[in-house]
Amino acid sequence: MENKFDRTKHVYRNDEFAELLKDAVRFFHGTPVFGLPPPEPFAGSGVYALYYIGRDGIYKKFGDSINRTEYAVPIYIGKTVPPGWRQSRTASANTGKSKSMFLRLAQHAKSISAAKNLNTADFACRFMILEGVAQSMTPSVEAALISRHNPLWNSVVDGFGNHDPGKGRRAGRISDWDSLHPGRAWTANQTGERPDKKDLKRRITDYLVGLR
Amino acid sequence: MENKFDRTKHVYRNDEFAELLKDAVRFFHGTPVFGLPPPEPFAGSGVYALYYIGRDGIYKKFGDSINRTEYAVPIYIGKTVPPGWRQSRTASANTGKSKSMFLRLAQHAKSISAAKNLNTADFACRFMILEGVAQSMTPSVEAALISRHNPLWNSVVDGFGNHDPGKGRRAGRISDWDSLHPGRAWTANQTGERPDKKDLKRRITDYLVGLR
Repeated sequence: MENKFDRTKHVYRNDEFAELLKDAVRFFHGTPVFGLPPPEPFAGSGVYALYYIGRDGIYKKFGDSINRTEYAVPIYIGKTVPPGWRQSRTASANTGKSKSMFLRLAQHAKSISAAKNLNTADFACRFMILEGVAQSMTPSVEAALISRHNPLWNSVVDGFGNHDPGKGRRAGRISDWDSLHPGRAWTANQTGERPDKKDLKRRITDYLVGLR
Repeated sequence: MENKFDRTKHVYRNDEFAELLKDAVRFFHGTPVFGLPPPEPFAGSGVYALYYIGRDGIYKKFGDSINRTEYAVPIYIGKTVPPGWRQSRTASANTGKSKSMFLRLAQHAKSISAAKNLNTADFACRFMILEGVAQSMTPSVEAALISRHNPLWNSVVDGFGNHDPGKGRRAGRISDWDSLHPGRAWTANQTGERPDKKDLKRRITDYLVGLR
């Protein structure tokens, strides 16, 4: 173990990566957009964005102006990694076979469909499959996109990406998302405290005012 | 919106990134190792690893053999990003000023120190500061290191990195880590279900058997 601390020994610099990341982000923004869920199952994992294009309710500004002429600002960004990826010590061989991203998008469609005040027809999605060695870029691409767009459901409104917490975790707090968009079956058993809906709506309004 | 799905339009390939990531991971494994917390505060954010080097208790195999002659297998890997990084739409200008990684390591030292059956003297840490445009690599470097080492506290034992959940979230489930290593003050108010400690210890034993 060292005693004397020399900061320079810990600093990693790399200028090339920023260019690669820009290229990946540019590619992402050029991928075709589909309804939610996409029309057919596909293999692969990667990064995806959901867009709100409806013209009603608290998110109407997205459909009315923000996303009216282009898919400009996503409401949610997420990623999937192939099953076992976090646990495997070597690059996964069956990378291309898992349908993890399609399945996640289908799950999101189900969450939205279950919500009493949302409609899947008001949503669109875009996604980028990262394969082979490019797969290791996934976390950085997701972070770059979240940092760039600061999507509402990744920032102000928490909990959309939550899964059924399973037995023994039911006594949890209702998430912001579930409080605003009640309907998911597994949240029915959650008895914990609820977020202040009035405060949440105010913060959504503030967020939307700040866009464009 | 598109109707016809063509998978190839969504596949991103990039071979260069894998080499950059390998270089970053190699750099990480060559950074100096310090006690926990490091001897002096430093500015910067990035990726860090904690190593167990003690020779008692359930983790003794780390000190006795796994990490005896080198810092081979970390018990935990984490990252920090500069404050506001997720929210900012442009690269943060004050990247180099925040002490986020040092503060996180100090917080981890405090958690370990609070645990009745752990001792900070049995831990070491290594860390890599990612600055400027290299900062965007942070999430991928962290994921690559976790995937490579599958650290115990990132996999089998959940909850070490948890923060004080604050008022209103106290009724939560005790985490695996807090159940195994009781002591953190803010967990005292958690009244939720506890993980099965016997099962956890068996899984730790299985994990350790699988190492080397």
